[in-house]
Amino acid sequence: MADLHFYYAPGACSLASHILLHEAGVPFTTTRLSVRPAFPDDYAYINSKKRVPVLSFNGDFITENPAVMLAVSQLVPEKNLMGKTDLDKVRVLEWMNWLSASVHGQAYGMILRPSRFSDQESLHPGIRENGMKTLQDCFAQIESWLGKNKQQGVGFYALGDGQNFSAVDGYLYVFYRWAISLKLDMQAQYSRYSTLVRKLESRDAVQQALQAEGLQSVL
Amino acid sequence: MADLHFYYAPGACSLASHILLHEAGVPFTTTRLSVRPAFPDDYAYINSKKRVPVLSFNGDFITENPAVMLAVSQLVPEKNLMGKTDLDKVRVLEWMNWLSASVHGQAYGMILRPSRFSDQESLHPGIRENGMKTLQDCFAQIESWLGKNKQQGVGFYALGDGQNFSAVDGYLYVFYRWAISLKLDMQAQYSRYSTLVRKLESRDAVQQALQAEGLQSVL
Repeated sequence: MADLHFYYAPGACSLASHILLHEAGVPFTTTRLSVRPAFPDDYAYINSKKRVPVLSFNGDFITENPAVMLAVSQLVPEKNLMGKTDLDKVRVLEWMNWLSASVHGQAYGMILRPSRFSDQESLHPGIRENGMKTLQDCFAQIESWLGKNKQQGVGFYALGDGQNFSAVDGYLYVFYRWAISLKLDMQAQYSRYSTLVRKLESRDAVQQALQAEGLQSVL
Repeated sequence: MADLHFYYAPGACSLASHILLHEAGVPFTTTRLSVRPAFPDDYAYINSKKRVPVLSFNGDFITENPAVMLAVSQLVPEKNLMGKTDLDKVRVLEWMNWLSASVHGQAYGMILRPSRFSDQESLHPGIRENGMKTLQDCFAQIESWLGKNKQQGVGFYALGDGQNFSAVDGYLYVFYRWAISLKLDMQAQYSRYSTLVRKLESRDAVQQALQAEGLQSVL
Protein backbone atom coordinates (compact mmCIF):
# COMPACT_ATOMS: atom_id res chain seq x y z
CA MET A 1 0.00 0.00 0.00
CA ALA A 2 1.23 3.50 -0.81
CA ASP A 3 2.42 5.70 2.05
CA LEU A 4 0.07 8.71 1.90
CA HIS A 5 0.22 11.93 3.88
CA PHE A 6 -2.26 14.68 3.02
CA TYR A 7 -1.81 18.41 3.68
CA TYR A 8 -4.98 20.51 3.70
CA ALA A 9 -6.54 23.69 5.02
CA PRO A 10 -10.04 23.36 6.51
CA GLY A 11 -12.73 24.18 3.96
CA ALA A 12 -10.20 25.15 1.27
CA CYS A 13 -10.27 23.59 -2.21
CA SER A 14 -8.23 20.73 -0.71
CA LEU A 15 -11.56 19.45 0.66
CA ALA A 16 -12.24 18.00 -2.81
CA SER A 17 -9.14 15.79 -2.61
CA HIS A 18 -9.86 15.02 1.05
CA ILE A 19 -13.31 13.70 0.12
CA LEU A 20 -11.76 11.57 -2.60
CA LEU A 21 -9.28 10.01 -0.18
CA HIS A 22 -12.22 8.93 1.98
CA GLU A 23 -14.15 7.70 -1.07
CA ALA A 24 -11.13 5.60 -2.03
CA GLY A 25 -11.08 4.09 1.46
CA VAL A 26 -7.28 4.00 1.59
CA PRO A 27 -5.30 4.66 4.80
CA PHE A 28 -3.65 8.08 5.06
CA THR A 29 -2.46 10.58 7.65
CA THR A 30 -2.93 14.34 7.56
CA THR A 31 -1.44 17.70 8.43
CA ARG A 32 -3.77 20.66 8.85
CA LEU A 33 -2.36 23.98 7.61
CA SER A 34 -3.70 27.49 7.95
CA VAL A 35 -3.53 29.42 4.66
CA ARG A 36 -4.96 32.68 6.07
CA PRO A 37 -3.49 35.19 5.57
CA ALA A 38 -1.03 33.10 3.54
CA PHE A 39 0.42 29.61 3.08
CA PRO A 40 3.09 29.10 5.81
CA ASP A 41 6.61 29.77 4.53
CA ASP A 42 8.07 26.87 6.51
CA TYR A 43 5.97 24.48 4.41
CA ALA A 44 7.21 25.84 1.07
CA TYR A 45 9.32 22.67 0.77
CA ILE A 46 6.13 20.65 0.12
CA ASN A 47 4.93 23.04 -2.60
CA SER A 48 6.98 25.97 -3.93
CA LYS A 49 3.71 27.41 -5.30
CA LYS A 50 2.48 27.67 -1.68
CA ARG A 51 -0.98 26.21 -2.16
CA VAL A 52 -3.00 23.32 -0.79
CA PRO A 53 -3.71 20.47 -1.42
CA VAL A 54 -0.43 18.57 -1.29
CA LEU A 55 -0.24 14.78 -1.16
CA SER A 56 2.96 13.08 -0.12
CA PHE A 57 2.84 9.84 -2.09
CA ASN A 58 5.64 7.47 -1.14
CA GLY A 59 7.72 10.57 -0.50
CA ASP A 60 6.87 12.40 -3.75
CA PHE A 61 4.96 15.64 -3.25
CA ILE A 62 1.97 15.95 -5.58
CA THR A 63 0.21 19.32 -5.96
CA GLU A 64 -2.92 20.63 -7.77
CA ASN A 65 -6.33 19.07 -7.11
CA PRO A 66 -6.77 17.18 -10.42
CA ALA A 67 -3.30 15.62 -10.04
CA VAL A 68 -3.87 14.60 -6.41
CA MET A 69 -7.27 13.17 -7.34
CA LEU A 70 -5.79 11.15 -10.22
CA ALA A 71 -3.09 9.76 -7.89
CA VAL A 72 -5.78 8.72 -5.38
CA SER A 73 -7.99 7.18 -8.06
CA GLN A 74 -5.08 5.11 -9.41
CA LEU A 75 -4.96 3.31 -6.02
CA VAL A 76 -8.53 2.01 -6.46
CA PRO A 77 -9.02 1.69 -10.23
CA GLU A 78 -12.14 -0.44 -9.71
CA LYS A 79 -13.96 2.60 -8.28
CA ASN A 80 -13.53 4.65 -11.51
CA LEU A 81 -13.24 7.85 -9.50
CA MET A 82 -11.80 9.71 -12.51
CA GLY A 83 -14.33 8.16 -14.93
CA LYS A 84 -14.84 4.70 -16.40
CA THR A 85 -14.93 5.05 -20.19
CA ASP A 86 -12.40 6.98 -22.28
CA LEU A 87 -14.98 9.72 -22.90
CA ASP A 88 -15.83 9.93 -19.17
CA LYS A 89 -12.13 10.40 -18.38
CA VAL A 90 -12.00 13.24 -20.90
CA ARG A 91 -15.13 14.85 -19.40
CA VAL A 92 -13.57 14.68 -15.93
CA LEU A 93 -10.60 16.76 -17.12
CA GLU A 94 -12.94 19.11 -18.98
CA TRP A 95 -14.94 19.80 -15.79
CA MET A 96 -11.89 20.01 -13.55
CA ASN A 97 -9.87 22.35 -15.73
CA TRP A 98 -12.76 24.77 -15.96
CA LEU A 99 -13.56 24.52 -12.24
CA SER A 100 -9.94 25.13 -11.38
CA ALA A 101 -9.17 27.94 -13.84
CA SER A 102 -12.46 29.78 -14.27
CA VAL A 103 -14.50 29.09 -11.11
CA HIS A 104 -11.69 28.93 -8.56
CA GLY A 105 -8.83 30.90 -10.17
CA GLN A 106 -10.86 33.68 -11.75
CA ALA A 107 -14.30 34.04 -10.10
CA TYR A 108 -13.40 33.09 -6.53
CA GLY A 109 -9.89 34.48 -6.99
CA MET A 110 -11.36 37.94 -7.54
CA ILE A 111 -13.79 37.57 -4.62
CA LEU A 112 -11.50 36.00 -2.01
CA ARG A 113 -8.03 37.12 -3.12
CA PRO A 114 -8.44 40.47 -4.91
CA SER A 115 -4.86 41.37 -3.97
CA ARG A 116 -3.74 38.89 -6.65
CA PHE A 117 -5.12 41.30 -9.23
CA SER A 118 -4.32 44.69 -7.72
CA ASP A 119 -2.07 45.98 -4.94
CA GLN A 120 -4.41 48.93 -4.39
CA GLU A 121 -6.93 48.11 -1.68
CA SER A 122 -9.29 50.82 -2.89
CA LEU A 123 -9.86 48.80 -6.06
CA HIS A 124 -10.68 45.53 -4.29
CA PRO A 125 -14.46 46.14 -3.94
CA GLY A 126 -14.76 46.59 -7.71
CA ILE A 127 -12.71 43.46 -8.39
CA ARG A 128 -14.88 41.50 -5.92
CA GLU A 129 -18.01 42.73 -7.67
CA ASN A 130 -16.65 41.52 -11.02
CA GLY A 131 -15.87 38.18 -9.41
CA MET A 132 -19.45 37.85 -8.17
CA LYS A 133 -20.79 38.43 -11.70
CA THR A 134 -18.38 35.84 -13.13
CA LEU A 135 -19.30 33.38 -10.38
CA GLN A 136 -23.02 33.63 -11.10
CA ASP A 137 -22.34 33.07 -14.81
CA CYS A 138 -20.35 29.97 -13.87
CA PHE A 139 -23.11 28.65 -11.61
CA ALA A 140 -25.66 29.16 -14.41
CA GLN A 141 -23.41 26.97 -16.62
CA ILE A 142 -23.15 24.29 -13.93
CA GLU A 143 -26.93 24.29 -13.46
CA SER A 144 -27.44 23.92 -17.21
CA TRP A 145 -24.91 21.08 -17.56
CA LEU A 146 -26.37 19.18 -14.60
CA GLY A 147 -29.73 19.54 -16.37
CA LYS A 148 -28.39 17.88 -19.52
CA ASN A 149 -27.32 14.89 -17.48
CA LYS A 150 -30.73 14.67 -15.89
CA GLN A 151 -32.33 14.52 -19.34
CA GLN A 152 -30.12 11.54 -20.16
CA GLY A 153 -30.85 9.56 -17.00
CA VAL A 154 -32.15 9.71 -13.48
CA GLY A 155 -28.93 10.51 -11.61
CA PHE A 156 -27.72 13.57 -9.75
CA TYR A 157 -23.99 13.43 -10.33
CA ALA A 158 -22.02 15.52 -12.83
CA LEU A 159 -20.67 12.81 -15.08
CA GLY A 160 -22.39 10.88 -17.88
CA ASP A 161 -25.95 9.85 -17.02
CA GLY A 162 -25.47 11.18 -13.48
CA GLN A 163 -25.73 7.82 -11.74
CA ASN A 164 -22.16 7.45 -10.51
CA PHE A 165 -20.13 9.61 -8.16
CA SER A 166 -16.83 10.90 -9.56
CA ALA A 167 -14.08 13.23 -8.40
CA VAL A 168 -15.86 16.07 -10.23
CA ASP A 169 -18.70 15.98 -7.68
CA GLY A 170 -16.37 16.52 -4.72
CA TYR A 171 -14.84 19.47 -6.55
CA LEU A 172 -18.30 20.95 -7.28
CA TYR A 173 -19.16 20.53 -3.60
CA VAL A 174 -16.38 22.87 -2.46
CA PHE A 175 -17.54 25.75 -4.67
CA TYR A 176 -21.13 25.37 -3.48
CA ARG A 177 -19.96 25.60 0.16
CA TRP A 178 -18.02 28.78 -0.57
CA ALA A 179 -21.09 30.34 -2.20
CA ILE A 180 -23.12 29.58 0.94
CA SER A 181 -20.51 31.36 3.03
CA LEU A 182 -20.91 34.35 0.67
CA LYS A 183 -24.65 34.29 1.52
CA LEU A 184 -25.79 33.43 -1.99
CA ASP A 185 -29.26 31.89 -1.98
CA MET A 186 -28.13 28.72 -3.73
CA GLN A 187 -31.26 26.64 -3.17
CA ALA A 188 -33.52 29.26 -4.72
CA GLN A 189 -31.27 29.94 -7.69
CA TYR A 190 -29.67 26.57 -8.48
CA SER A 191 -31.98 23.68 -7.76
CA ARG A 192 -30.13 20.90 -9.60
CA TYR A 193 -26.81 21.94 -8.09
CA SER A 194 -28.51 21.94 -4.67
CA THR A 195 -29.92 18.46 -5.27
CA LEU A 196 -26.40 17.25 -6.06
CA VAL A 197 -25.05 18.81 -2.87
CA ARG A 198 -27.82 17.24 -0.76
CA LYS A 199 -26.95 13.87 -2.28
CA LEU A 200 -23.24 14.43 -1.61
CA GLU A 201 -23.83 15.33 2.02
CA SER A 202 -25.58 11.98 2.46
CA ARG A 203 -22.39 10.13 1.48
CA ASP A 204 -20.23 8.67 4.25
CA ALA A 205 -16.98 9.87 2.65
CA VAL A 206 -18.19 13.46 2.52
CA GLN A 207 -19.25 13.36 6.18
CA GLN A 208 -15.90 11.82 7.16
CA ALA A 209 -13.97 14.56 5.36
CA LEU A 210 -16.17 17.28 6.89
CA GLN A 211 -15.67 15.84 10.38
CA ALA A 212 -11.91 15.59 9.91
CA GLU A 213 -11.78 19.27 8.86
CA GLY A 214 -14.15 20.40 11.64
CA LEU A 215 -16.88 21.48 9.21
CA GLN A 216 -20.68 21.13 9.11
CA SER A 217 -23.05 20.22 6.28
CA VAL A 218 -24.52 23.25 4.51
CA LEU A 219 -27.93 21.79 3.51
CA MET B 1 -10.80 5.83 -36.85
CA ALA B 2 -12.49 8.63 -34.90
CA ASP B 3 -14.04 11.50 -36.85
CA LEU B 4 -12.12 14.57 -35.63
CA HIS B 5 -12.76 18.21 -36.38
CA PHE B 6 -10.66 20.80 -34.57
CA TYR B 7 -11.63 24.44 -33.92
CA TYR B 8 -8.78 26.82 -33.14
CA ALA B 9 -7.71 30.45 -33.24
CA PRO B 10 -4.23 31.14 -34.68
CA GLY B 11 -1.60 31.39 -31.94
CA ALA B 12 -4.17 31.02 -29.14
CA CYS B 13 -3.81 28.38 -26.42
CA SER B 14 -5.48 25.97 -28.84
CA LEU B 15 -2.04 25.70 -30.50
CA ALA B 16 -1.09 23.24 -27.73
CA SER B 17 -3.85 20.84 -28.76
CA HIS B 18 -3.13 21.49 -32.45
CA ILE B 19 0.49 20.42 -31.93
CA LEU B 20 -0.69 17.28 -30.14
CA LEU B 21 -3.00 16.33 -33.02
CA HIS B 22 0.02 16.47 -35.34
CA GLU B 23 2.17 14.54 -32.84
CA ALA B 24 -0.51 11.85 -32.76
CA GLY B 25 -0.45 11.64 -36.55
CA VAL B 26 -4.20 11.09 -36.80
CA PRO B 27 -6.33 12.52 -39.62
CA PHE B 28 -8.42 15.58 -38.72
CA THR B 29 -10.01 18.62 -40.33
CA THR B 30 -10.07 22.15 -38.94
CA THR B 31 -12.03 25.37 -38.64
CA ARG B 32 -10.14 28.58 -37.96
CA LEU B 33 -11.95 31.05 -35.70
CA SER B 34 -11.11 34.60 -34.76
CA VAL B 35 -11.46 35.25 -31.01
CA ARG B 36 -10.50 38.94 -31.18
CA PRO B 37 -12.28 40.91 -29.85
CA ALA B 38 -14.40 37.92 -28.73
CA PHE B 39 -15.37 34.34 -29.54
CA PRO B 40 -17.99 34.45 -32.35
CA ASP B 41 -21.54 34.14 -31.00
CA ASP B 42 -22.65 31.95 -33.87
CA TYR B 43 -20.18 29.28 -32.69
CA ALA B 44 -21.50 29.21 -29.11
CA TYR B 45 -23.16 25.88 -29.98
CA ILE B 46 -19.72 24.20 -29.99
CA ASN B 47 -18.78 25.66 -26.57
CA SER B 48 -21.16 27.64 -24.39
CA LYS B 49 -18.08 28.96 -22.52
CA LYS B 50 -17.01 30.61 -25.81
CA ARG B 51 -13.38 29.56 -25.78
CA VAL B 52 -11.00 27.62 -28.02
CA PRO B 53 -9.91 24.85 -28.38
CA VAL B 54 -12.90 22.68 -29.23
CA LEU B 55 -12.57 19.19 -30.66
CA SER B 56 -15.54 17.54 -32.30
CA PHE B 57 -14.92 13.86 -31.56
CA ASN B 58 -17.39 11.59 -33.35
CA GLY B 59 -19.89 14.42 -32.92
CA ASP B 60 -19.21 15.11 -29.22
CA PHE B 61 -17.79 18.56 -28.54
CA ILE B 62 -14.81 18.44 -26.16
CA THR B 63 -13.51 21.68 -24.63
CA GLU B 64 -10.54 22.70 -22.39
CA ASN B 65 -6.97 21.95 -23.48
CA PRO B 66 -6.20 19.11 -21.00
CA ALA B 67 -9.43 17.32 -21.97
CA VAL B 68 -8.81 17.71 -25.72
CA MET B 69 -5.24 16.52 -25.26
CA LEU B 70 -6.35 13.45 -23.30
CA ALA B 71 -8.89 12.60 -26.02
CA VAL B 72 -6.16 12.86 -28.67
CA SER B 73 -3.69 10.81 -26.64
CA GLN B 74 -6.26 8.03 -26.15
CA LEU B 75 -6.22 7.50 -29.94
CA VAL B 76 -2.50 6.64 -29.90
CA PRO B 77 -1.87 5.10 -26.45
CA GLU B 78 1.49 3.73 -27.61
CA LYS B 79 2.85 7.30 -27.86
CA ASN B 80 2.23 8.03 -24.13
CA LEU B 81 1.46 11.66 -24.94
CA MET B 82 -0.12 12.15 -21.49
CA GLY B 83 2.61 10.22 -19.69
CA LYS B 84 3.65 6.57 -19.50
CA THR B 85 3.79 5.60 -15.81
CA ASP B 86 1.07 6.32 -13.26
CA LEU B 87 3.26 9.00 -11.67
CA ASP B 88 3.98 10.59 -15.05
CA LYS B 89 0.25 10.79 -15.74
CA VAL B 90 -0.22 12.55 -12.40
CA ARG B 91 2.62 14.99 -13.17
CA VAL B 92 1.02 15.82 -16.53
CA LEU B 93 -2.18 16.94 -14.77
CA GLU B 94 -0.15 18.81 -12.16
CA TRP B 95 1.67 20.79 -14.86
CA MET B 96 -1.44 21.35 -16.96
CA ASN B 97 -3.70 22.50 -14.17
CA TRP B 98 -1.17 25.06 -13.05
CA LEU B 99 -0.43 26.23 -16.60
CA SER B 100 -4.13 26.60 -17.29
CA ALA B 101 -5.22 28.26 -14.03
CA SER B 102 -2.18 30.27 -12.92
CA VAL B 103 -0.15 30.99 -16.06
CA HIS B 104 -2.99 31.35 -18.57
CA GLY B 105 -6.03 32.23 -16.45
CA GLN B 106 -4.37 34.54 -13.95
CA ALA B 107 -1.06 35.90 -15.31
CA TYR B 108 -1.90 36.14 -19.01
CA GLY B 109 -5.56 36.80 -18.17
CA MET B 110 -4.55 40.02 -16.43
CA ILE B 111 -2.17 41.01 -19.25
CA LEU B 112 -4.28 40.15 -22.29
CA ARG B 113 -7.85 40.33 -20.95
CA PRO B 114 -7.85 42.87 -18.10
CA SER B 115 -11.55 43.56 -18.75
CA ARG B 116 -12.24 40.17 -17.13
CA PHE B 117 -11.14 41.70 -13.84
CA SER B 118 -12.45 45.27 -14.11
CA ASP B 119 -14.91 47.11 -16.32
CA GLN B 120 -13.01 50.37 -15.76
CA GLU B 121 -10.47 50.87 -18.53
CA SER B 122 -8.46 53.31 -16.40
CA LEU B 123 -7.54 50.40 -14.11
CA HIS B 124 -6.33 48.10 -16.89
CA PRO B 125 -2.69 49.30 -16.92
CA GLY B 126 -2.37 48.45 -13.20
CA ILE B 127 -3.93 45.03 -13.71
CA ARG B 128 -1.60 44.37 -16.65
CA GLU B 129 1.39 45.33 -14.50
CA ASN B 130 0.29 42.88 -11.81
CA GLY B 131 -0.08 40.21 -14.48
CA MET B 132 3.50 40.82 -15.68
CA LYS B 133 4.82 40.30 -12.13
CA THR B 134 2.82 37.09 -11.73
CA LEU B 135 4.00 35.89 -15.15
CA GLN B 136 7.68 36.38 -14.30
CA ASP B 137 7.16 34.49 -11.03
CA CYS B 138 5.60 31.65 -13.02
CA PHE B 139 8.45 31.59 -15.53
CA ALA B 140 10.97 31.43 -12.66
CA GLN B 141 9.09 28.34 -11.40
CA ILE B 142 9.14 26.74 -14.86
CA GLU B 143 12.88 27.42 -15.21
CA SER B 144 13.52 25.85 -11.81
CA TRP B 145 11.42 22.74 -12.52
CA LEU B 146 13.05 22.22 -15.92
CA GLY B 147 16.37 22.41 -14.04
CA LYS B 148 15.37 19.61 -11.68
CA ASN B 149 14.66 17.37 -14.65
CA LYS B 150 18.02 18.18 -16.15
CA GLN B 151 19.73 17.08 -12.95
CA GLN B 152 17.96 13.74 -13.23
CA GLY B 153 18.86 13.08 -16.85
CA VAL B 154 20.03 14.55 -20.09
CA GLY B 155 16.69 15.52 -21.63
CA PHE B 156 15.03 18.84 -22.37
CA TYR B 157 11.35 18.01 -21.95
CA ALA B 158 9.20 18.82 -18.94
CA LEU B 159 8.27 15.34 -17.79
CA GLY B 160 10.32 12.84 -15.77
CA ASP B 161 13.95 12.67 -16.85
CA GLY B 162 13.22 15.04 -19.74
CA GLN B 163 13.88 12.55 -22.51
CA ASN B 164 10.37 12.15 -23.87
CA PHE B 165 8.01 14.69 -25.40
CA SER B 166 4.60 14.95 -23.73
CA ALA B 167 1.54 17.15 -24.09
CA VAL B 168 2.96 19.40 -21.34
CA ASP B 169 5.71 20.58 -23.70
CA GLY B 170 3.25 21.77 -26.34
CA TYR B 171 1.39 23.69 -23.66
CA LEU B 172 4.62 25.27 -22.37
CA TYR B 173 5.45 26.27 -25.94
CA VAL B 174 2.34 28.45 -26.27
CA PHE B 175 3.16 30.52 -23.18
CA TYR B 176 6.75 31.08 -24.35
CA ARG B 177 5.46 32.37 -27.70
CA TRP B 178 3.11 34.82 -25.98
CA ALA B 179 5.99 36.12 -23.84
CA ILE B 180 8.02 36.78 -26.99
CA SER B 181 5.13 38.80 -28.40
CA LEU B 182 5.19 40.82 -25.16
CA LYS B 183 8.88 41.58 -25.90
CA LEU B 184 10.23 39.72 -22.85
CA ASP B 185 13.87 38.76 -23.31
CA MET B 186 13.22 35.06 -22.78
CA GLN B 187 16.59 33.74 -23.96
CA ALA B 188 18.51 35.96 -21.54
CA GLN B 189 16.27 35.23 -18.56
CA TYR B 190 15.16 31.62 -19.02
CA SER B 191 17.82 29.50 -20.65
CA ARG B 192 16.40 26.04 -19.90
CA TYR B 193 12.93 27.07 -21.06
CA SER B 194 14.54 28.49 -24.23
CA THR B 195 16.43 25.24 -24.83
CA LEU B 196 13.12 23.37 -24.59
CA VAL B 197 11.49 25.72 -27.08
CA ARG B 198 14.40 25.37 -29.54
CA LYS B 199 14.02 21.59 -29.29
CA LEU B 200 10.26 21.85 -29.81
CA GLU B 201 10.64 24.01 -32.91
CA SER B 202 12.81 21.29 -34.42
CA ARG B 203 9.93 18.80 -34.21
CA ASP B 204 7.90 18.11 -37.37
CA ALA B 205 4.58 18.23 -35.53
CA VAL B 206 5.29 21.70 -34.14
CA GLN B 207 6.26 22.98 -37.59
CA GLN B 208 3.13 21.43 -39.13
CA ALA B 209 0.89 23.10 -36.54
CA LEU B 210 2.65 26.45 -36.99
CA GLN B 211 2.28 26.25 -40.76
CA ALA B 212 -1.40 25.34 -40.49
CA GLU B 213 -2.01 28.38 -38.26
CA GLY B 214 0.12 30.72 -40.41
CA LEU B 215 2.74 31.26 -37.70
CA GLN B 216 6.54 31.41 -37.63
CA SER B 217 9.10 29.92 -35.23
CA VAL B 218 10.19 32.32 -32.49
CA LEU B 219 13.78 31.07 -31.98
